[in-house]
Amino acid sequence: MIRSSSYAGVMESLMNSAEEQQPSSPLANSWSKPQESSKNQMPKCIGGFVLVHAGAGYHSESKAKEYKHVCKRACQRAVDRLKAGALAVEAVAAALVELEDSPFTNAGMGSNLNLSGEIECDASIMDGKSLHYGAVGAISGIKNPVLVANRLLSEAQKGKLSAGRIPPCFLVGRGAHDWAVSHGISPCPSEKMATKFSLSAYKRNKRKMELAEKMDTGPNQAKKRRQSSENENVSGCLDTVGAIVVDLEGNVAAAVSSGGLAMKHPGRVGQAAHYGCGCWAENAFNMNPYSTAVSTSGCGEHLIRTMLARECSAAMQSEDAHQALLQTMQNKFISSPFLASEDRVLGGVIVLRCCRCAEPPPSPKIQGILVEFLWSHTTESMCVGYMSAQDSKAKTHISRLPPGTVPGQCLAIEGGVCRLMSVAE
Amino acid sequence: MIRSSSYAGVMESLMNSAEEQQPSSPLANSWSKPQESSKNQMPKCIGGFVLVHAGAGYHSESKAKEYKHVCKRACQRAVDRLKAGALAVEAVAAALVELEDSPFTNAGMGSNLNLSGEIECDASIMDGKSLHYGAVGAISGIKNPVLVANRLLSEAQKGKLSAGRIPPCFLVGRGAHDWAVSHGISPCPSEKMATKFSLSAYKRNKRKMELAEKMDTGPNQAKKRRQSSENENVSGCLDTVGAIVVDLEGNVAAAVSSGGLAMKHPGRVGQAAHYGCGCWAENAFNMNPYSTAVSTSGCGEHLIRTMLARECSAAMQSEDAHQALLQTMQNKFISSPFLASEDRVLGGVIVLRCCRCAEPPPSPKIQGILVEFLWSHTTESMCVGYMSAQDSKAKTHISRLPPGTVPGQCLAIEGGVCRLMSVAE
Repeated sequence: MIRSSSYAGVMESLMNSAEEQQPSSPLANSWSKPQESSKNQMPKCIGGFVLVHAGAGYHSESKAKEYKHVCKRACQRAVDRLKAGALAVEAVAAALVELEDSPFTNAGMGSNLNLSGEIECDASIMDGKSLHYGAVGAISGIKNPVLVANRLLSEAQKGKLSAGRIPPCFLVGRGAHDWAVSHGISPCPSEKMATKFSLSAYKRNKRKMELAEKMDTGPNQAKKRRQSSENENVSGCLDTVGAIVVDLEGNVAAAVSSGGLAMKHPGRVGQAAHYGCGCWAENAFNMNPYSTAVSTSGCGEHLIRTMLARECSAAMQSEDAHQALLQTMQNKFISSPFLASEDRVLGGVIVLRCCRCAEPPPSPKIQGILVEFLWSHTTESMCVGYMSAQDSKAKTHISRLPPGTVPGQCLAIEGGVCRLMSVAE
Repeated sequence: MIRSSSYAGVMESLMNSAEEQQPSSPLANSWSKPQESSKNQMPKCIGGFVLVHAGAGYHSESKAKEYKHVCKRACQRAVDRLKAGALAVEAVAAALVELEDSPFTNAGMGSNLNLSGEIECDASIMDGKSLHYGAVGAISGIKNPVLVANRLLSEAQKGKLSAGRIPPCFLVGRGAHDWAVSHGISPCPSEKMATKFSLSAYKRNKRKMELAEKMDTGPNQAKKRRQSSENENVSGCLDTVGAIVVDLEGNVAAAVSSGGLAMKHPGRVGQAAHYGCGCWAENAFNMNPYSTAVSTSGCGEHLIRTMLARECSAAMQSEDAHQALLQTMQNKFISSPFLASEDRVLGGVIVLRCCRCAEPPPSPKIQGILVEFLWSHTTESMCVGYMSAQDSKAKTHISRLPPGTVPGQCLAIEGGVCRLMSVAE
């Protein structure tokens, strides 16, 4: 039942991967200078770390620059919020807004069009501190779906509605749109959310589909439709976006947002609005020594059926984070019995875990949080960015499968370690 | 963070619970007479077992008869399909259609009305053999939402759509309705799905809400709305329906269907359409010696955030099924850190697990499957029915919390054991 798959070509590196790495990065595996934080006049417990992705899919060299640029801006936005004293969940929402607003990503503005030529978005957010969750599915006419998800989360935290009604954590379609507007989120005309690129991709895909369906007529229709060559396929644009954050109190949060598959059926909801599949965040608690946060990207149905976000989060409680993620991607994703009939399993994740530093800090006044962060993907490439509040700018990177390896059957895994510190007063 | 809760009053019994138990039941913990199967001219591997629920909530004595009646019919419908050679997934869908068609249950016909006075249904189905899954959320104008979920499941099993598009596993709203109709499922006018009871409950709830919101005006509005007394609350009608089945090949399947909470916001999707929350089915595989199937009922948001169906399924791989379910309901539901802010955690589950009988059968020609089945709930009551293909009629039962215990903080757990057999030719 389990498909054979290969570890050949698995690329493993720690911290040596970022294309724009700074030699004197405070993210390197050592304590940052305490002066830096006093220079910035950081009060106690303000700061943190953010890791974002602009999707697992295929990023051409020509698109790479734009993707890295938006990741950089998203990291900066989250760090700005963290420095202003925001909790992880607020910072992660801020990063998502920036990612959604880019016309290059498949989320919010510039999302893929569905079969009917409309934009329907999915988004969700999870707060590791309260373990509350909010999600919207197949929502139209809202520029930033993540803000609706975030508002559902914060409304649910207030407790019951009038007459003892339980507040919703997941709203879809027209009802989600109307709820957003009634909670002060401005509607956005759909035509403003489509871009020149998304409209031309729609026309191109429509032609491909018509061609494929013409070829499909005849007695062997069902067989033929399964055999259509890759060239005839609609765009494999899987550039869902997401982010994970830890603040200096050690709270984690995660979010994800997507326009969904190109030419999807109206009403189709992907992993970005599926609990446990699109994102996950859980503060350290009882048996779990680590706080963990995860955000996924890729083929929605594959990420849903393997519940990849929650699986990765659970795995991060193992001793060796890198090994645990590698095994999870291999055994619970590529070789998952839930995807036994799939020839190519496409997806990517960003994960972080953190705990109080075990080593004594350089001064008893300084408290440290050790953050281990990783990304892994089975798609040709994945674009990520990361930054701590101690950094002057974000690092960005397009991770690619090693040459000659087969997307959907092999994986890349990379990551790093970062120490955050807060000065006790 | 974990709320204190009490085991006091936990009711435990095995097989001694069914109100309509037949003394000579072939479900009792012993082999059925092989003659029975030859009398019915059962060919090899035709038969199985079904367990259904008509919701965890509150079932008044006056409603009890109707609920038991519909459970009986649903069991019979599944067993008829099993005897006709159907696999578990087909039988479970047949049981759900019967449960949805009852005007007394909160699913399909007679569903709760939402805030706008409309019916929007959720349903999902999972096949333990293929591990495929289909779900619809907030769907209107379809008499049997489970049939749309089932069709999504079977269409996905056929592989990719034209031009390499991945078939959806979850559709919502208008898009789900249109997909269903384009796949030959007849639309049903919404007014035909409302009943005298659901319409009068809507009017009553509307008045309660207006009253509660009038009281909410003023400076302490937010505080007041959380304190509204139970009498002012809208109907706690949580009678979602579901079923779990094992066929004689040992395949399991599970399904669930719900009209959702009364007076919910339009577009709200509950646990019945959430992967891992409403139902779960997984055939024995590799490290998992048991095939397991689960269907849940109760407060959607509580069942979602604890992912109760999947948690119960995983727990069923432990040695003692009864103990594992008890601990899961206690630790992963009532005392779940995900529901730390909830004062009452409301839900119920039906579970089954099965494996090849360890004991040697009375004849080498006979192969046996041992089925352990249980139900547990924190709501005041839960209505269940069960039947094997060897039974002449279904057993039904309304399980209640012991007198004096507090719903949402205590639980009841009951169950039984059944041996299925097939005659090798």
